[in-house]
Amino acid sequence: MNDQQQLLIVSNRGPLRFSVSSDGEVTAKRGGGGLVTALSALTATRPVTWVASALSDDDAAVAERGAYRDGNLTLRLVQHDREEYDRYYNVFANPTLWFVHHYLWSLALEPSVDRNVRLAWEAGYVPVNERFAEAAAEELAEAGPRPLVMVHDYQLFMVPGSLRARVPDAVIHHFTHIPWPQPDYWRVLPVDVRTAIHESMLACDVVGLHTPRYARSFLQCCERFVPNAQVDVRGGEAEFQGRRIRARAYPISVNPDEFERLAAEPAVVDAEPKVLEARPEKLILRVDRTDPSKNVVRGFSAFDLFLSDHPEWAGRVTMLALLDPSRPEIPEYAEYVGAIQRAARAVNDRYYTGDWMPIDLRISDNFPEAVAAYKHYDVLLVNAIFDGMNLIAKEAPLINERDGVLILSENTGAHVELGRYALTVNPFDIQATADAIHEALVMPEQERHQRIEAIRRQVREHDIDRWIRDQLDDLAEVDGVEAPEALR
Amino acid sequence: MNDQQQLLIVSNRGPLRFSVSSDGEVTAKRGGGGLVTALSALTATRPVTWVASALSDDDAAVAERGAYRDGNLTLRLVQHDREEYDRYYNVFANPTLWFVHHYLWSLALEPSVDRNVRLAWEAGYVPVNERFAEAAAEELAEAGPRPLVMVHDYQLFMVPGSLRARVPDAVIHHFTHIPWPQPDYWRVLPVDVRTAIHESMLACDVVGLHTPRYARSFLQCCERFVPNAQVDVRGGEAEFQGRRIRARAYPISVNPDEFERLAAEPAVVDAEPKVLEARPEKLILRVDRTDPSKNVVRGFSAFDLFLSDHPEWAGRVTMLALLDPSRPEIPEYAEYVGAIQRAARAVNDRYYTGDWMPIDLRISDNFPEAVAAYKHYDVLLVNAIFDGMNLIAKEAPLINERDGVLILSENTGAHVELGRYALTVNPFDIQATADAIHEALVMPEQERHQRIEAIRRQVREHDIDRWIRDQLDDLAEVDGVEAPEALR
Repeated sequence: MNDQQQLLIVSNRGPLRFSVSSDGEVTAKRGGGGLVTALSALTATRPVTWVASALSDDDAAVAERGAYRDGNLTLRLVQHDREEYDRYYNVFANPTLWFVHHYLWSLALEPSVDRNVRLAWEAGYVPVNERFAEAAAEELAEAGPRPLVMVHDYQLFMVPGSLRARVPDAVIHHFTHIPWPQPDYWRVLPVDVRTAIHESMLACDVVGLHTPRYARSFLQCCERFVPNAQVDVRGGEAEFQGRRIRARAYPISVNPDEFERLAAEPAVVDAEPKVLEARPEKLILRVDRTDPSKNVVRGFSAFDLFLSDHPEWAGRVTMLALLDPSRPEIPEYAEYVGAIQRAARAVNDRYYTGDWMPIDLRISDNFPEAVAAYKHYDVLLVNAIFDGMNLIAKEAPLINERDGVLILSENTGAHVELGRYALTVNPFDIQATADAIHEALVMPEQERHQRIEAIRRQVREHDIDRWIRDQLDDLAEVDGVEAPEALR
Repeated sequence: MNDQQQLLIVSNRGPLRFSVSSDGEVTAKRGGGGLVTALSALTATRPVTWVASALSDDDAAVAERGAYRDGNLTLRLVQHDREEYDRYYNVFANPTLWFVHHYLWSLALEPSVDRNVRLAWEAGYVPVNERFAEAAAEELAEAGPRPLVMVHDYQLFMVPGSLRARVPDAVIHHFTHIPWPQPDYWRVLPVDVRTAIHESMLACDVVGLHTPRYARSFLQCCERFVPNAQVDVRGGEAEFQGRRIRARAYPISVNPDEFERLAAEPAVVDAEPKVLEARPEKLILRVDRTDPSKNVVRGFSAFDLFLSDHPEWAGRVTMLALLDPSRPEIPEYAEYVGAIQRAARAVNDRYYTGDWMPIDLRISDNFPEAVAAYKHYDVLLVNAIFDGMNLIAKEAPLINERDGVLILSENTGAHVELGRYALTVNPFDIQATADAIHEALVMPEQERHQRIEAIRRQVREHDIDRWIRDQLDDLAEVDGVEAPEALR
């Protein structure tokens, strides 16, 4: 691999969102998030083509004009039929796949694989993935040998297989940003679906996941569901159709400099008073999407238990929950917001004194407020049921000003790196979580300082640039020594 | 091992239930079920001591008088504190463990490990298991070297560890009658609990499960949760504290002769008219406990879909659901009965014609009626979500008189042996289940005959006696060649 080798990125959400004025002028706005920032940074040294969905009418209008070019970046927007996209995104990817990956189904009654789910697969997920693969192949039409393709996440499991058929010599990488469930739980999906997904993933050269545990689970699934694959779980690889597939752990991270810069931004500084207002003596913070995997309700129950076990803290500590509304079109998500609100109200009704609100629940999309809260928490609660990584556990400590303590679920990807510096909790164990809240609040200053410094060191030494570099290095190896001659 | 070596069986439910008359006369009644029959048969050739719970006041009264003896059988009943037993059985074993083993929790909200579950473990499951181990050790006090102990099921995971400490040279076997879940799902339980359970199980010499898949899952769990264990998943064994533990698959079965005898019993013959009354032209049968793992609701939904896809069958086929009420003290079970009733009513309201009831739902404990129905079904639906074995799939075909077709969930233990002769369904896929119902109803006579004959051959050649014999043979091997000298 060299820097002039064509690099193609495929993800559902692209790096830019467009607006088109009434006179046809196009404005591009950079999307947020460390992933987009980090991948976009690659354009500094090489041409990058990015294939992503047109997500708005303005995006679609831009897509009509062909690929969008800006310096080294070429953005190819894929247009979808609205209904097909809805089945793909709002039925199959979410909640069906998301709930399988996070073990969230209430299996006694849900899901039922009926015409709706079947259609979401056959006339949603599969054709939308096909369309991505087709667009990617078109963009590679004039590429040199062994073009490099990085495909992102669970919305696009069927892209590698389809792309391999169209561009046999491509170096294909797929990264999954959520956990990989173990084989039994995949049995929620019919055999043809789970086989198709794993066969497609085995069209990759490298399959990236956040942790060694997920990588093992992926390989165990291949072993179970793809009879013709030769799988070496311990060795971290498989052979399928004459090719070698590596499953590797690359724990995603953040850009520390970006957060230090953000912390000083006017919008963040302006949001600080509203955060400080919530804090009596101490502040427990959680920042999450309103996703059932995030375990907000048990977090409130644990705080309830803590207040009941430790009445001496009444009036002195508030739990600030900054929740970004997520996927409101999906019934399971809408219902979960209801459960969150009921749980917060139950605690507040029980302990409210007139001048102290135990839980300050704020449901809105307000990133500056979240960053402001990162600076001022005493305890950061990350108790996700299952969570691919959880970047909040990595980013918030970087700019916290109070040597805040991290309480971290053992079922997050972040726990592999940060567990030893955090107070570990089992996310289902609300008594243990309540105990951890107390332990965090009374922890001596020096210990708190050592722990947060250790977290910062770990994150700075394993930042997002390193995450990308490690993957590109492994892909270079694929392209170099070990690719079978026949494919050249 | 030889036939005079002491054999001790430990299970929560024993082989006999007692009644004591007002003048103190004790009557013992043999409990039902193939397991009790088969294990009791061992008393024909050797002395057997059985340790089980006293489950009624009369049982307790008998227990007060010491061990009960009848020929080669010695029955030692263990008395429990009522509250402790309730925590052990109705909170920890069910639903907590049962729901973990069958992947049934709705994890977004349940379970919460709180004081209640903690207490159920610490002041329920653990001490009740201790009491079993203590009683077993007492019964072994005068045993010769290397007494043989067989412990049964998920209520008694903590017995092997406790017994090993008391009787170091015992040959300990444990058999789990339900699936073994994969490591991720065990994370619903706190680390100390899941570690304790797996460490205790590694005090066995042989760990028996129904299928190779469960045995693999068990070993993968040991690898994950017991850092000091050396585990060889492919080899089917582990080493822990200087001992070797084998994890083996022994698919439980039934006694074919018993079912042929039962089929002719007056109570069964008397029940036949009530079964035949339900059958218009064809009869689809399901026989289950009202357990959420049995998937009754999706079975009704699938029948609904079938009737909607195939209106030509209206009035010609009835689904007879014979459901044995199960664990009504447990809220999740009580609620599931409600869901079953609502689902049946919805289908009946939709298709009821005055002289045809699409679903005939009978919730009662009526074994003769179930056996009568075994004789007369055209389709047997076994669509369990997850099921350790499912013996109905093995026993009903033995005495069916209509070359009935078996529809079998791929997630049952029975599917390993019978899948190739059944119509396999994914239990979540109600469309596929509806299609299978149609396929079964229109299957040519000759094919139906071949399939049911193949099932019968498989079950007759792998009956319950063979299940026990295989286990005793493996235990003889433990005792013979391979036990470390140090333990003798």
